[in-house]
Amino acid sequence: MPDATRILGIDPGLQLTGYGVVVLDEGPGLAEPRLVEGGVIRLKPKTSVEHRLVELHRELLELIDEHQPNVLAIEKLYAHYKHPRTAIVMAHARGVILLAAKLRAVEIAHLPSTEVKKAVTGHGHASKQQVQRAVQSQYRLAEPPTPFDVADAIAIATCHARRMAVERL
Amino acid sequence: MPDATRILGIDPGLQLTGYGVVVLDEGPGLAEPRLVEGGVIRLKPKTSVEHRLVELHRELLELIDEHQPNVLAIEKLYAHYKHPRTAIVMAHARGVILLAAKLRAVEIAHLPSTEVKKAVTGHGHASKQQVQRAVQSQYRLAEPPTPFDVADAIAIATCHARRMAVERL
Repeated sequence: MPDATRILGIDPGLQLTGYGVVVLDEGPGLAEPRLVEGGVIRLKPKTSVEHRLVELHRELLELIDEHQPNVLAIEKLYAHYKHPRTAIVMAHARGVILLAAKLRAVEIAHLPSTEVKKAVTGHGHASKQQVQRAVQSQYRLAEPPTPFDVADAIAIATCHARRMAVERL
Repeated sequence: MPDATRILGIDPGLQLTGYGVVVLDEGPGLAEPRLVEGGVIRLKPKTSVEHRLVELHRELLELIDEHQPNVLAIEKLYAHYKHPRTAIVMAHARGVILLAAKLRAVEIAHLPSTEVKKAVTGHGHASKQQVQRAVQSQYRLAEPPTPFDVADAIAIATCHARRMAVERL
């Protein structure tokens, strides 16, 4: 039997980058992912963008080296943006994250935001609170994962795990 | 007498990233920068974003190692965007460029776009053609630098060199 698949979900940001690691075991039937770890990379808001990018790069390589994911899952770019400036700042972080994954030869899965929300809550336009509660319920956590960035990252990893579980049926 | 200052100007993009290297010699009076090299990093448009980011990272580290710049000059983020999607894609490249500079301990200068245009053409809202012709004239080039990305990168490096030349008077 092949090894389990390890999925690292990432919710990128230059203040907080959320991450979640889930494992999808091999086996007959529709597997449900297990949560290994969720957390957040906090970047010092008063430092320069380039300083934070170096920190993010370093911390992400550490995460990859520690968890040895088979796939890094991340949301696709949106087609429409309410806050272009926020999206542009986020894209700096996203670039550095994609680079780190590729430098470590980790496959990258780009997931539509609506698919992520639908996979965990049943609704493509769920609120951040609904995603948070759905992640708590799915993994039977004592408390909702906070901040939202952690819940979002776990949701992204979960969505990709579900997609894989269905594909191999 | 201290060494000359080497400035690497960068115009980031995920299809073309322009670069220009200028040197500002030490000495009495207002120095004018000399052009060392201009060129473009071409990324394969049909490959994935992450593949292009890895290429860009590698080529940029090579450029830095070859030219040993004291400063990497790049335009500031704009406050307003006509094409948010283009800006967001560009920001992936910009993040990887800032990361490479910081990993090599190269100082980064963020210049307002209008200051760059004004420094080479006299007008803060000059067209790309005007920037191109001004760069050609400033460095007495036989032909205008093409594509625009190269002219823009040389203009960015030139702007920072002028700023430094004035500051040390």
